[in-house]
Amino acid sequence: MAQPVFNNAFMNGKISLKPYFLIIFCSIALVAQAQNINEDLVFIKKIYNEALERQQSYTWLEYLSEKIGNRIAGSPQNMAAIEFTSQILDTIGSDTVWRQPCVVNYWYRGAKEEVSIINHPLIGNRSLHCLALGGSASTPKYGLSGSVVEVKSIDEVKKAGSSLKDKIVFYNRPFDNKQLRTFNSYGGAVDQRVFGPNAAAKLGAKAVVIRSMTGRLDDIPHTGVTIFDSAVAAIPALALSTKDAELLSTCIQSGPTNLYIKTSCEQRGPKQSYSVIGEIRGTEKPDEIIAIGGHLDSWDVGGGAHDDGAGCIQSMEVLYLFKVMNYKPKRTIRCVLFQNEENGLAGGKTYAKVSNDNKEFHLAAIESDAGGFTPQGFSYDADSAVFSKLTKNVPKWAELLAPYNLQFSKGGSGADVGPLRSQKGLLLGLSPDSQRYFDIHHTEKDRIEAIHPRELALGSAAITSLVYLIDKYGLTD
Amino acid sequence: MAQPVFNNAFMNGKISLKPYFLIIFCSIALVAQAQNINEDLVFIKKIYNEALERQQSYTWLEYLSEKIGNRIAGSPQNMAAIEFTSQILDTIGSDTVWRQPCVVNYWYRGAKEEVSIINHPLIGNRSLHCLALGGSASTPKYGLSGSVVEVKSIDEVKKAGSSLKDKIVFYNRPFDNKQLRTFNSYGGAVDQRVFGPNAAAKLGAKAVVIRSMTGRLDDIPHTGVTIFDSAVAAIPALALSTKDAELLSTCIQSGPTNLYIKTSCEQRGPKQSYSVIGEIRGTEKPDEIIAIGGHLDSWDVGGGAHDDGAGCIQSMEVLYLFKVMNYKPKRTIRCVLFQNEENGLAGGKTYAKVSNDNKEFHLAAIESDAGGFTPQGFSYDADSAVFSKLTKNVPKWAELLAPYNLQFSKGGSGADVGPLRSQKGLLLGLSPDSQRYFDIHHTEKDRIEAIHPRELALGSAAITSLVYLIDKYGLTD
Repeated sequence: MAQPVFNNAFMNGKISLKPYFLIIFCSIALVAQAQNINEDLVFIKKIYNEALERQQSYTWLEYLSEKIGNRIAGSPQNMAAIEFTSQILDTIGSDTVWRQPCVVNYWYRGAKEEVSIINHPLIGNRSLHCLALGGSASTPKYGLSGSVVEVKSIDEVKKAGSSLKDKIVFYNRPFDNKQLRTFNSYGGAVDQRVFGPNAAAKLGAKAVVIRSMTGRLDDIPHTGVTIFDSAVAAIPALALSTKDAELLSTCIQSGPTNLYIKTSCEQRGPKQSYSVIGEIRGTEKPDEIIAIGGHLDSWDVGGGAHDDGAGCIQSMEVLYLFKVMNYKPKRTIRCVLFQNEENGLAGGKTYAKVSNDNKEFHLAAIESDAGGFTPQGFSYDADSAVFSKLTKNVPKWAELLAPYNLQFSKGGSGADVGPLRSQKGLLLGLSPDSQRYFDIHHTEKDRIEAIHPRELALGSAAITSLVYLIDKYGLTD
Repeated sequence: MAQPVFNNAFMNGKISLKPYFLIIFCSIALVAQAQNINEDLVFIKKIYNEALERQQSYTWLEYLSEKIGNRIAGSPQNMAAIEFTSQILDTIGSDTVWRQPCVVNYWYRGAKEEVSIINHPLIGNRSLHCLALGGSASTPKYGLSGSVVEVKSIDEVKKAGSSLKDKIVFYNRPFDNKQLRTFNSYGGAVDQRVFGPNAAAKLGAKAVVIRSMTGRLDDIPHTGVTIFDSAVAAIPALALSTKDAELLSTCIQSGPTNLYIKTSCEQRGPKQSYSVIGEIRGTEKPDEIIAIGGHLDSWDVGGGAHDDGAGCIQSMEVLYLFKVMNYKPKRTIRCVLFQNEENGLAGGKTYAKVSNDNKEFHLAAIESDAGGFTPQGFSYDADSAVFSKLTKNVPKWAELLAPYNLQFSKGGSGADVGPLRSQKGLLLGLSPDSQRYFDIHHTEKDRIEAIHPRELALGSAAITSLVYLIDKYGLTD
């Protein structure tokens, strides 16, 4: 008897439900919600089980980082990485796999190792641990030497003005180790590396050395991109290990210090490269895309295991896990391995442009480019109109993922998915534990040994779980 | 005019406050609470700043784990560790430092390395990576050999009964890698190591080998305690690396397999040892003790860096941080470095007994014995009467510590603080990220290289922050 009364009340537009009908109504809703949540908890647990038991990501990453090795955009290994990941995406059963062309500028470190030798009365001649920055120019064949001036910031360089002509400028502002998240320490120091050499070159400095971008005191130099204005002639630019930066600073404090440096870097010009894309087409809303990605290029030292082999492999594993679990997404799930994030972002920019040209809509795009360590959550970013839609869903996701030590916080997403912002979807970045990341970032140490198979798998499972929730509920359901 | 009306209303028992008085009243309370919370946020941030910038814990731990080295209870290095930590606790300005005597049974691995050689038609003779378990007996001088029987559980051994006489029993139940927290995988497997040899010895087995307690497949054997009933004669018991356990299992599947083993373990009898205690006496409630601790002994391989040098050093650093911040606690803060947790718990048992005899009250006791990795929170445990007091404070602590990725969950505390349960205070355990722990637990790899200075410091900061909150608010304020 309940049903007709219920319908009538609504049909009369009066909503005059008696209390007991309300109770029944609410109970049904609550039971349905509880069932849904229970179903989600079970499915997410299953995702974690599969990821932790199979540890598929580690096997792939070992091949990518050790068998193929580092793979700067434009290099031969870069093409090997494109081939390898395309094959895997195909083998695991993606509906479509394709390569999206983009043009990259191939910077080559040169055939010979960089050299940096300090000359100072206190210690005589001493070799320093160094690594040319990506974008650095070559020195003359037999190197160059000059007097070193230490600075802590680009502002200081600008103030020093023409006094820096023919000098070697030494940027030595350390990481702020008080930051809880090491990416904040990096953010507070990295302008020296990216823009410092350009600022010094403008004033006629003959070369730049910088303190490596890490909070640890050790002998490992860290490379990374440096950018010169098109109107400025590039100069040689080298990163020194933090211990050697301290040594150099000590020497300078006790009197004039000379440095000899030698590099053999080359710009090898534009090369054809590709981002690699694989997708599972949605069964109900195929035009709503949920993208997950990392960047396929790496620096040309180490194995690019954490940066960003991990993010690529985890993104591939999202498709893999859905396949082995026989989950058929409602929306289109697309894995994008962006090309050339490290020194140009050609892949990320091209991907967004092509997507916009094709009038695609990315409901969400998740980037993993902060290392393959134990995930701690997701940071999310969106247009303000999108934010207002999320008041219900983000707390729901947060509750479902809290048992896996995952938190949600507003913040950045990632360099490669950033250009998709104009599509007014949700952008997210996986936030792994950051404590060890800048020990190995852009160094010879970024190899498979620095990866833990379970931590890597937990990242894959975290992303897969979130993709499952977004696929199931959208942003507003 | 507000004040008298306010008082009258309460005195008449009518609580007839007008709305605007209520607003004023609530606002004052809220402002006071907000000030308190703000003060707490600032103080906790300062604790983290000091811990992350100084990284004092790492320096101490390097000395303890590498200069002194491993330090099984009763060994000469064990005495060195007692001396070293006493000196540090004294130097940093503890009000009192003392050594609490306890008697430990010194188990000695023996002068010669363990040997385990498989003999099988498929592979001939092959040496296995092995390590005697703590408590293992010695083999005859020239070793022993026997036919191997593989089992997955103690129940299986009991069922096999007298058929195991003169056999070598091989426990080979692996970790369940689906567990999110590796301590749960350990908990599901470790009965084989602790009680398996005893069960086999009772049935006349001549020796036991077990699969090492780790979820990784590698060549590293893991030692750990095994316990024989006093009525049972101990037999030799060895851990095999997981890879060698797989190899042995494969051999057994293809036919009868023999194993030769040799150990030279000794029980060196009771020795005098000590737990080391340092405290800062409370200014207002000195009889309410907040204890923090780890265990000073370690296994006799590696450097005991994570297990449990880390917990000891972090506990010492709590006092150190309060000292350098010039914080004078209301309650007594006591750092306890328990002796002999690994194979007897003499320190933990003695500490609780002496404390009870002296009618002390531990308001809280926090143990750090789960590794020096990035902390993820605290698990807490108490008598049910104590639990009911915590409904306000645990959520407050959780809110204040959430920015540091710390969560609170009900669960165990630790073996050493467990015996304090009868004092009806709160028992807590620090829960660090567990993913890497069982790679190195009780192995040669548990050295300073496996420790990250920032992760270690974050553990110290987390404990110090919680001690600060408990000291300030008690359990019920």
